[in-house]
Amino acid sequence: MGDSIYSTYPPNLSPVQQEYLVTTIKNWAIQNGLAVRPAPTALPVGADDNRVLATNAPVTLFPSPFPAACFEEATALQTIYNQLYAAITCNEEWLGKIIEDLVDVDDFVANLWKTHLEVKKEGYVQDLSLGLFRSDYMAHVTPEGPPSLKQVEFNTISSSFGGLSALVRSLHAELLTSPPGSPISYPPHPLFDSNIPPENTAVETLSGGLAAAHTAYGPSKSTPALPLCVLFVVQEGERNIFDQLALSKHLTHTHKIPVFRLPSNRIIDDTLIPSSNPSRPLIYRPPHSPETAFEVTTVYLRAYYAPDEYKSSRDWEARTHLERSAAIKCPTIQQVLAEPTGPDHLTSFMGGIDPAIIARLRQTFAPQYDLSTDGQGRKLAFNPETAMKHVLKPQREGGGNNIYKAEIPNFLRSIPEKDWKGWVLMELIDPASDAENVALRNDGEVLRGNVISELGVYGTILWETNGKVLHNDQGGWLLRTKGKEVNEGGVAAGFSSLDSILLY
Amino acid sequence: MGDSIYSTYPPNLSPVQQEYLVTTIKNWAIQNGLAVRPAPTALPVGADDNRVLATNAPVTLFPSPFPAACFEEATALQTIYNQLYAAITCNEEWLGKIIEDLVDVDDFVANLWKTHLEVKKEGYVQDLSLGLFRSDYMAHVTPEGPPSLKQVEFNTISSSFGGLSALVRSLHAELLTSPPGSPISYPPHPLFDSNIPPENTAVETLSGGLAAAHTAYGPSKSTPALPLCVLFVVQEGERNIFDQLALSKHLTHTHKIPVFRLPSNRIIDDTLIPSSNPSRPLIYRPPHSPETAFEVTTVYLRAYYAPDEYKSSRDWEARTHLERSAAIKCPTIQQVLAEPTGPDHLTSFMGGIDPAIIARLRQTFAPQYDLSTDGQGRKLAFNPETAMKHVLKPQREGGGNNIYKAEIPNFLRSIPEKDWKGWVLMELIDPASDAENVALRNDGEVLRGNVISELGVYGTILWETNGKVLHNDQGGWLLRTKGKEVNEGGVAAGFSSLDSILLY
Repeated sequence: MGDSIYSTYPPNLSPVQQEYLVTTIKNWAIQNGLAVRPAPTALPVGADDNRVLATNAPVTLFPSPFPAACFEEATALQTIYNQLYAAITCNEEWLGKIIEDLVDVDDFVANLWKTHLEVKKEGYVQDLSLGLFRSDYMAHVTPEGPPSLKQVEFNTISSSFGGLSALVRSLHAELLTSPPGSPISYPPHPLFDSNIPPENTAVETLSGGLAAAHTAYGPSKSTPALPLCVLFVVQEGERNIFDQLALSKHLTHTHKIPVFRLPSNRIIDDTLIPSSNPSRPLIYRPPHSPETAFEVTTVYLRAYYAPDEYKSSRDWEARTHLERSAAIKCPTIQQVLAEPTGPDHLTSFMGGIDPAIIARLRQTFAPQYDLSTDGQGRKLAFNPETAMKHVLKPQREGGGNNIYKAEIPNFLRSIPEKDWKGWVLMELIDPASDAENVALRNDGEVLRGNVISELGVYGTILWETNGKVLHNDQGGWLLRTKGKEVNEGGVAAGFSSLDSILLY
Repeated sequence: MGDSIYSTYPPNLSPVQQEYLVTTIKNWAIQNGLAVRPAPTALPVGADDNRVLATNAPVTLFPSPFPAACFEEATALQTIYNQLYAAITCNEEWLGKIIEDLVDVDDFVANLWKTHLEVKKEGYVQDLSLGLFRSDYMAHVTPEGPPSLKQVEFNTISSSFGGLSALVRSLHAELLTSPPGSPISYPPHPLFDSNIPPENTAVETLSGGLAAAHTAYGPSKSTPALPLCVLFVVQEGERNIFDQLALSKHLTHTHKIPVFRLPSNRIIDDTLIPSSNPSRPLIYRPPHSPETAFEVTTVYLRAYYAPDEYKSSRDWEARTHLERSAAIKCPTIQQVLAEPTGPDHLTSFMGGIDPAIIARLRQTFAPQYDLSTDGQGRKLAFNPETAMKHVLKPQREGGGNNIYKAEIPNFLRSIPEKDWKGWVLMELIDPASDAENVALRNDGEVLRGNVISELGVYGTILWETNGKVLHNDQGGWLLRTKGKEVNEGGVAAGFSSLDSILLY
């Protein structure tokens, strides 16, 4: 591509052009459900007592250029990644070893593991696990050679934004082609010529995974048989609800599957496992129609993924209750714990996979280092010069806690050495340094500047504990773009924006 | 139907049931664009400086029962009504006579007529007129016999709510059938058994009318030829914008027709008629891409329908400018003026129409009386007993000015007798007196009580000044339901709600 593609991208906007785009996008977003609920704290007291207001999700005005080869590689590897993470969850010995290292430093992990062991003791009654995954990457740019794909994170829990991301793709595609025959919504740019973002089937893929689990559950285990349903376990006051509703709408309309939303604090009240039934079906009685009972085939957790959601023993009780049941869980506890992995152990999990594919998978890892013992990792972390090229990441996901560059040495000195094993040192990926875009925040503010983008690719897999895979699919993507000064993501919070891609 | 259908309708809601319905509807509305912008005055200062917020349109929780025979009759008569109003606009003599009576009492009508005469003097260059109409009815209930259909109003200008009404139909249909296989969103009721609201093709019908006009315009009249477009002339700060966007989206996606929105105060700035071209094409240059010129085939006015929108001579200049142009207008000035008509003159306009059909049309009129001369009208208006069964309506539409029942005699005494001819006395229609529903306002308040509903049926017609009809279609409907204490409509203002129908 010779000079950076960003030297002329995105095209400049006159005030009138920007006003047109911003107005069009604000309206398009509300018309099409590309929306979020505003944070109550963002509004004056009394502005929205009945919680009716909505606003556009934060989005970029332009799609961002992304190297076609990197996009294709990410797509090609997704089902392999699905398999890798499924395989890890099936390897209890391996999991146990990782956990042992973490239980001292992480109460959340310790409690999850305890829950798992408790249910294991009684015996699991559901052999199937469902994963809705998202593998996040950056295009790593070096002075020599083409950009390469580097994984930032693999999400096994609450892989969000599939619903809204598909809408952002439609928004940008529509702007690029409207009005029909004479597209002038954007100022002209060579990258726009006959180019629209690739199809985004995130909703179909994620819903397809849930539908596959629903079907694989089989007939009702109750006598008499009950109607079956999928349960979305959600957070109270969820602001990113329209992202989730895109999936439930598709499940209902296309797959004709009943879906209910259940706030996590209502699990104990509204579901039960009949003690007389050794199959332990999970029975849900909708509070608005308590005389009707449904049997839950699949529990999709969009809650209970962060430690602060477990406020009391009642929450752990609820989580255990779900794990005990015959419903297929997405994710299972094993999936949550399967997160940390490095490039070194790939081969052991990927028996039967072409070594050439494993090599491509390995290519997507940025070098990362263990800090539990003296060695290269600690050396790189404490040398101020090499620290600048690294990020310190907690072993367990949660966001908000990454430590960057110059801050690394002092941070490590500030915590006890025994806790260092809870962290991984990772070489920073170098995204295009001159990438630019314009963001429309959900309060209507417009920001232009240097940005960093992460590509997420969605995948879904359904497997048995013995490793047998029943459904393995990929499709759909997310581009999340944040201002360069912001180090942590979180689109719903307004710090970063939903974006789409133009391949080059 | 024996006893009133409302004796058990709508079913009672427990607090939990109501909460479920309200939450589901609030979310459904935003996910699907059944939305309005909140009034800036409804929010605290500083709550929405960038105008990003949206809320659900006011809707009823339940569809309202409506007599199937009345609905079918309204649908059957719509294309005949289209023809009637087209015929009236073609009869300049008749129009002139009505106007003569009104010019003294109504500046707005006088100015419209002046504009028409001015353009007529120069000569119209567009022979086609497009009507997007909505005929509003009530089901008139009498102790003896089945309910009958009575027309409340025929709208020739800015017939709104087609876009949102189609969505309310989808909302209620979805609630009635969800979850699939075990519908429990509503408490059970016999009226819900295998019953959903009839199909609502308002968006297809109205967009189809605009598309028919766009096509009938023919090729560009400019040299060199310009790309063609449809122009929506809109009010600044329109809050009911998502209703309008439903039509433009359909025009763009289905008919592949470029559509632009132009605030009425920008007409003079952004459009021109080249003085060198005797065909007078209307050229639109989008301010966000001023180097691109489009030729406007069709001007769809969603503005300039109320006197207070004409703030200065510049507005009349803009209106004249549009009328002079070759663009097809929806509505033309003649359509605006064609509004007032009574049952007495039907036959003269309906040459060639089966007298049996005309009789059915006549059946839909409530008796109405002229007040210009001494006679039955004045007698009924001043007798306190008969006044109670009537409403006094201004000859020209605008809303907000109807005078009801006991207030009629004193109102007439309060204005000069010479102005009485600006008013028509109409016998009030008796809707079901025990109709009930529950409304969710756009601020989230929930109101239950006695209601009155009006059914609107949409139609569109394209015709030549000589009377030849090129396109005449009907389809789609609106049910607008208001609390009984409220005498005037206006859904966007929150006084009444969008509803749908269950036929019985």
